[in-house]
Amino acid sequence: MLPLLAPATVRPRADRDHADRIARSAATTDGVHMRTEDVRAWIAERREANVFHVERISFADLDQWWFEDVTGNLVHSSGRFFAIEGLHVVEADGPHGDGPYREWRQPVIKQPEVGILGILAKEFDGVLHFLMQAKMEPGNPNLVQLSPTVQATRSNYTKAHGGTNVKLIEYFAPPDPEGIIVDVLQAEQGSWFFRKSNRNMIVETVDDVPMWDDFCWLTLGQIAELMHEDETINMNARSVLSCLPYHDRASGALLSDIQLLSWFTNERSRHDVRARRIPLTDVDGWKQGVEAIEHEDGRYFKVLAVAVKGSNREKISWTQPLLESVGTGVVAFLVREIDGVPHVLVHARADGGFLDTVELAPTVQCTPHNYAHLPPESRPPFLDLVLDAPRSRIRYEAVHSEEGGRFLNVRARYLAIDADDTTVVPPGYAWVTPAQLTALTRHGHYVNVEARTLLACINAATAQPQGKA
Amino acid sequence: MLPLLAPATVRPRADRDHADRIARSAATTDGVHMRTEDVRAWIAERREANVFHVERISFADLDQWWFEDVTGNLVHSSGRFFAIEGLHVVEADGPHGDGPYREWRQPVIKQPEVGILGILAKEFDGVLHFLMQAKMEPGNPNLVQLSPTVQATRSNYTKAHGGTNVKLIEYFAPPDPEGIIVDVLQAEQGSWFFRKSNRNMIVETVDDVPMWDDFCWLTLGQIAELMHEDETINMNARSVLSCLPYHDRASGALLSDIQLLSWFTNERSRHDVRARRIPLTDVDGWKQGVEAIEHEDGRYFKVLAVAVKGSNREKISWTQPLLESVGTGVVAFLVREIDGVPHVLVHARADGGFLDTVELAPTVQCTPHNYAHLPPESRPPFLDLVLDAPRSRIRYEAVHSEEGGRFLNVRARYLAIDADDTTVVPPGYAWVTPAQLTALTRHGHYVNVEARTLLACINAATAQPQGKA
Repeated sequence: MLPLLAPATVRPRADRDHADRIARSAATTDGVHMRTEDVRAWIAERREANVFHVERISFADLDQWWFEDVTGNLVHSSGRFFAIEGLHVVEADGPHGDGPYREWRQPVIKQPEVGILGILAKEFDGVLHFLMQAKMEPGNPNLVQLSPTVQATRSNYTKAHGGTNVKLIEYFAPPDPEGIIVDVLQAEQGSWFFRKSNRNMIVETVDDVPMWDDFCWLTLGQIAELMHEDETINMNARSVLSCLPYHDRASGALLSDIQLLSWFTNERSRHDVRARRIPLTDVDGWKQGVEAIEHEDGRYFKVLAVAVKGSNREKISWTQPLLESVGTGVVAFLVREIDGVPHVLVHARADGGFLDTVELAPTVQCTPHNYAHLPPESRPPFLDLVLDAPRSRIRYEAVHSEEGGRFLNVRARYLAIDADDTTVVPPGYAWVTPAQLTALTRHGHYVNVEARTLLACINAATAQPQGKA
Repeated sequence: MLPLLAPATVRPRADRDHADRIARSAATTDGVHMRTEDVRAWIAERREANVFHVERISFADLDQWWFEDVTGNLVHSSGRFFAIEGLHVVEADGPHGDGPYREWRQPVIKQPEVGILGILAKEFDGVLHFLMQAKMEPGNPNLVQLSPTVQATRSNYTKAHGGTNVKLIEYFAPPDPEGIIVDVLQAEQGSWFFRKSNRNMIVETVDDVPMWDDFCWLTLGQIAELMHEDETINMNARSVLSCLPYHDRASGALLSDIQLLSWFTNERSRHDVRARRIPLTDVDGWKQGVEAIEHEDGRYFKVLAVAVKGSNREKISWTQPLLESVGTGVVAFLVREIDGVPHVLVHARADGGFLDTVELAPTVQCTPHNYAHLPPESRPPFLDLVLDAPRSRIRYEAVHSEEGGRFLNVRARYLAIDADDTTVVPPGYAWVTPAQLTALTRHGHYVNVEARTLLACINAATAQPQGKA
């Protein structure tokens, strides 16, 4: 209910003030709460303060998860959380996705619920700080990373799994309309999720926020430095931070905004991807064992099960399925300056799990292992250029891991690589500015989750003169 | 292929010039090509110059269309164009859609191809004119209405049906990047189509464009006047015109843009609509006859078949299925000024055929006949207020018909009604400015096709002091 109280008044449509204060926070590398160099120790301390144990188990040892009759789908007894089902993808004009094929079947995560990924913001000494949580997730290689203030599926925060309340959820469901900086549904991995999206939110408050040992207020400048560390800022935090509205201080772009949208519209129109959910039992080319469902040639990923025991999570112990990648990914933007303005080379990528055909992806996004058996011409464009890039061309590099609530040890090297001025742009690729991508993150289904990670890193690197890059 | 030719240069991201020239065209009510008062006679003349005949036939007399074995879906032998299938909709938190039910089955049009709806623009005497076509479509009550320059399914313009070339398609596939004013995928009726969208385009040229008797250059001021005539500007033209970028000359809005987006994100998150395609034979509650598939209580719509004979269409004669509504629709925005700025009351509407849960719809959008058997409390909010509005409160009124290539005699009264200052805003509704809606039409899946029609009409009425409203 939004009652309209008289006398109603209008306000400016744009909030320019947000971008100013975000820039100030990005330029501030001394937080009031913790020094950046102490964050790593604090995360390590949080890791030790709570005894976590993640153990691979057989599917038969899963509690309340089972393989459904007939379909063979791996589901939770409540019908909630998520399920592992099958997906049949036909790309009439392919190949796209992370493989050289035009048609395939694969397991996929079906999670229709929209969760909340929310970061609380507050000014201290006139500078915006963001409340990060040192959060354990069973699939993180190092267990604890910095997450948004809140990350909760609807099942979490409506207590479907019988756990405790989600701390600080009251700032996001619903948010104070006066404090909203970011609020957008963004999709996650289109190769592993079927049309999953989460609500990415940043909400500012003036309240005295209660604090716990797992939480810490950091400036954007501090977070930018931490974005250069391996496996420190988790995927959800990277995704939310990529949506922050920054000022565009450049003089323009190679393509005007309407030209970029037109190019994107054409890419979305010209692809014909038909993705259809099928029973997990109908997924040819994959074999189901006692402890894993895996591709018969050992490519792509495995579905497996873990038992988790923790103490500071919403529930003390549980079992769940996870997806494990079979190799480290490579995710890279080629970068070049045009007329003095930095541009990145985006790829209009079609994935079977996307809601609407294509999203803008990094120049390279793949797991090289999946192509190892193939001739060179079947390798993704620019992969070798990225793998062979000399150190002098690497503008940004860090290893990040993907969502630790669904993925086990899924890591990728994220890179920004200086391109040659003579780079030939193939169909489906375009040079755009980070500011243009940032503007598109205000809306869903434009910038994919891997590109959002790189965007957050590039924006951080740009806004942060003391960064390592 | 977008080869990057050295030396590459950047350009401004926004093209402010477009909005200026659009405003000038909207203020110009004398076109260089035809006087507005002569357009009606010209359309009538085009109607008579080409002998069209549309006749209802039995399904058995359809040529190359048949009911598929097993599914009973009504399909074309080529596998292209469109198909009539079944849809099963469950709205966990419903009811939504054009009826008071939380779960139902219905026939639906499945048309996976993305077509092009393109209007060519050109300056004459320094004023933008738009090339409109007097086009026959079998479902139009008056057969010929003004359509975009080009409206073509992919099957049309790739000649899947063996017809002639689509005139002027070369201006849109692909468009000249320097001439793009609008290029966006917009969805169509979510109650009758399953996730259909078309590419809405406006492209400017400086060429000497070849002319035919069915085409006419008109200014926006002229089109605005014609938008006040019943059944003159077709749905596709209204949709494309709604996406024109206008300047926002207002001082703001009740909600800032980010507040509006946040409200919309919440609406999209809180709805849980599961829509699943099913075989047409599984659609309970509908009966299939020799000449029609209809609801057993005579509500909603009918599927039927027609034979068309024409002479200026891409093909001389053909047969096809059409959907016929069982009553005239009512589509209305409540309008009020807040702080002197006009606002419309939008409804975040969930339809089974939407790609992503909800789109912004008019305050009222329904076929009253579908509610005639129900108690008053089951009628849609604001319907009676709209139906009972005194003439003095009607700011805009015209009868428009929906897409004549798929719908037979589907008409609605489109209205803008002055609201009372005391109007209570129920959950799922919000006051927004036409300028905010116009900004959202730059992206797909925000503003539904009925709201786009009203937006085009309101923008036209506002920009057009000589209008009848």
